[in-house]
Amino acid sequence: MGGSTVEPVVRESVGSAPGNLAIASLARTLRCVECGHETRLEVHQSCPACLGPLAVTYDLSTLRGSVPSDRLSGRPRSIGRFAELLPPLSLPWSARLDLETTPLRPAPRLAEWLGVETVWLKDDTVLPTGSFKDRPASVAVAFAAAQGHRAVGCASTGNLAAATARAAVRASLPCFVFVPAGLPDSKLDPVRQFGGQIVEVEGPYDVANRVANLAAEAAGIGVVNITLRPYYTEGSKTLALETFEALGWNPPDAIALPLGSGALLAATERAISQLREIGWIPSGPGPALLGSQPDGCAPIADAFDAGSDEIVPVEHPRTIAESLAIGDPGSGYEALRAIRASRGAADSPTSEEVIAAIRALARTEGIWVEPAAGTVIATLRRLREAGTVRRQDRVVAFLTGAGWKISHAVALSRVGSAPIHLDPVHPDLSQLHVGPRPEALGGAE
Amino acid sequence: MGGSTVEPVVRESVGSAPGNLAIASLARTLRCVECGHETRLEVHQSCPACLGPLAVTYDLSTLRGSVPSDRLSGRPRSIGRFAELLPPLSLPWSARLDLETTPLRPAPRLAEWLGVETVWLKDDTVLPTGSFKDRPASVAVAFAAAQGHRAVGCASTGNLAAATARAAVRASLPCFVFVPAGLPDSKLDPVRQFGGQIVEVEGPYDVANRVANLAAEAAGIGVVNITLRPYYTEGSKTLALETFEALGWNPPDAIALPLGSGALLAATERAISQLREIGWIPSGPGPALLGSQPDGCAPIADAFDAGSDEIVPVEHPRTIAESLAIGDPGSGYEALRAIRASRGAADSPTSEEVIAAIRALARTEGIWVEPAAGTVIATLRRLREAGTVRRQDRVVAFLTGAGWKISHAVALSRVGSAPIHLDPVHPDLSQLHVGPRPEALGGAE
Repeated sequence: MGGSTVEPVVRESVGSAPGNLAIASLARTLRCVECGHETRLEVHQSCPACLGPLAVTYDLSTLRGSVPSDRLSGRPRSIGRFAELLPPLSLPWSARLDLETTPLRPAPRLAEWLGVETVWLKDDTVLPTGSFKDRPASVAVAFAAAQGHRAVGCASTGNLAAATARAAVRASLPCFVFVPAGLPDSKLDPVRQFGGQIVEVEGPYDVANRVANLAAEAAGIGVVNITLRPYYTEGSKTLALETFEALGWNPPDAIALPLGSGALLAATERAISQLREIGWIPSGPGPALLGSQPDGCAPIADAFDAGSDEIVPVEHPRTIAESLAIGDPGSGYEALRAIRASRGAADSPTSEEVIAAIRALARTEGIWVEPAAGTVIATLRRLREAGTVRRQDRVVAFLTGAGWKISHAVALSRVGSAPIHLDPVHPDLSQLHVGPRPEALGGAE
Repeated sequence: MGGSTVEPVVRESVGSAPGNLAIASLARTLRCVECGHETRLEVHQSCPACLGPLAVTYDLSTLRGSVPSDRLSGRPRSIGRFAELLPPLSLPWSARLDLETTPLRPAPRLAEWLGVETVWLKDDTVLPTGSFKDRPASVAVAFAAAQGHRAVGCASTGNLAAATARAAVRASLPCFVFVPAGLPDSKLDPVRQFGGQIVEVEGPYDVANRVANLAAEAAGIGVVNITLRPYYTEGSKTLALETFEALGWNPPDAIALPLGSGALLAATERAISQLREIGWIPSGPGPALLGSQPDGCAPIADAFDAGSDEIVPVEHPRTIAESLAIGDPGSGYEALRAIRASRGAADSPTSEEVIAAIRALARTEGIWVEPAAGTVIATLRRLREAGTVRRQDRVVAFLTGAGWKISHAVALSRVGSAPIHLDPVHPDLSQLHVGPRPEALGGAE
């Protein structure tokens, strides 16, 4: 690491057998976030009483008052590092999942562009399939393995499909990916590379979801984002846990992150609340949670803007941020409540703003992200301009996906970058303006 | 890291100001690898006396007999970690280059597929632009910055173009990428994202190269793979240096790596020889260097096979491994000598074997590589089958690039992975065979 990466205060040799490190999960029950109904840690996709979303509860008494550096000493810097705060994963599996802690990078030049003094980027673009979905997919697959499932799967065509297929490889389980028939090959190539079985279902996405659900029951397939959803979403807590550790347990003023289903924001809120409960971060205000949706699909941000408690589904999402095109967000209410409770905000930049933000990030810090992460940076810029984020705030942005895979959004961003043409015999080299960098540091697009 | 990543024996807190760490380069001269002519550490693309390739020489006397863990203690785990063994980089720049040490991953299941007991993968797919070219590009750009160049550039349309444009962002220098006119946009998108200026030249690649050379002289542009070539190739040594540190300075029996220009293999040989000179690894035999070229462009491997000292250029390379399609390898003779001196070997698998190797790697270890790295794995399999590599050998393979970017090779590998079709009303779930994973671990494709 090093360079401009923030380092944790304590780093240790981890020895050669991290898989043998026995850290018991402190997970105890599933509890409905709507009605409070509690049930055992079994496969339930939603509350048996009211169909509300379920969350894993923990008995954290043994961690309360502990010193984080003592507790974490000697542990691998990977997904299993915070095993107490995750579902029971069967540690030998989780070690094989092999997701390393990602860098938290200071971003002084992006901070200038944003007009904020201190910005860190939690860089999940380096994960094996290029998005943060490796985290929830890995945790769900490891939980499925611990529960004795013989196969896993998902209903997705995007980042989650690749992440689930890859996690299944690490766990030596077959993987079934349920999709509507007729998708272009390019969407399914990563799944094929990792040996996942594509299962095409005639009809739209919700039919593929329904069939995935049937398959889960009939064939014993653990479908990570459906039947294993409560465990799956726990995996997303590790973004926040790693961030706080990298900052020496000194919370930032704000965390900016994307809102698709709302599950990442809700998971981030749970991580913060659990760290407060055990005393690893102070109680009291902050960090403010700043949620980002693209303007073509912003049901949560719209409810926040309107001061409403009702989230109105978007029937036909239209956005370049495909991974945020979730019209009826499953964890929307949780996310909306968490934003308000944290004194945070939500916003929904335009596609043009998203493209400008992707470009600014690439040209200031050298990191190329997919539109979902561009939406986060564009939202930060908006909230700074509106005064919601102050110049002196210390801000963390979650960069949830890499730009390499997203060709159509790239095509949109070609505008304004014409090549220089040179004659091969008499090249007019005066066209090559070498001097101060054209876009001054910290300046706008 | 952790999980199944091999850890160095010593890891330290690196503090918050790695840029202030003063490590002086021990580089002293440029020396021609053909005629031995020596010159100062200035911008020379080839030997002023004989036009042979130049290599940086070092005075390593101050390092001789030192203890690596003492020497490296407290240094950031990034590209500047081995600064003594690199060109003078102007350390504040190199810290900003921000290339973290990449994981060395044990690969027990790929080892089974290969029929070898111990395999580690040096995983450069996690680098910022998805290939090892981030290393030489970053070192060359940092050297250019130290030399007061006002701009950098390269003549390339592939991995190097993205890596140079990204390194230029980190160094706040303008970047000019010289290409033949008429390339598809998709090739140039990464350069545009990072704000690099495309310079189109009418004519084939060698004309673009010639114009880049003119521009270097006339406009003061440091062209990393042309005018800065001796410094550029030094950056590739860090792959080997990091590998040996991760193995506790206990060399493997063999290192398998791709051969394009031959510069990576030559750099690896220099790193090994320098580590021997300072006593950080034992003198004597090993590791054997195993070079890989695709069968459609194998001038170095063909010379090795023929027992010849002459490398016959390939006029029309035809291969899916585009980054290895270098018909007239600039460091070919160095590479050939290094392979023979190490008692290594070279081989040139077919495209079908490369695709099978990419798939085997993805399905055993969950890492998706580009064809150049697939060529390395396919070569290992060939050399094992031929008995050149023995079952009990401890082998390191350099995974030099990620698979995400390479759509055409992916299309080739779609064969044999037909989707299952399900009726939405009466889905026949018996088609979903859940049971032992179809391709047994360690089995062949």
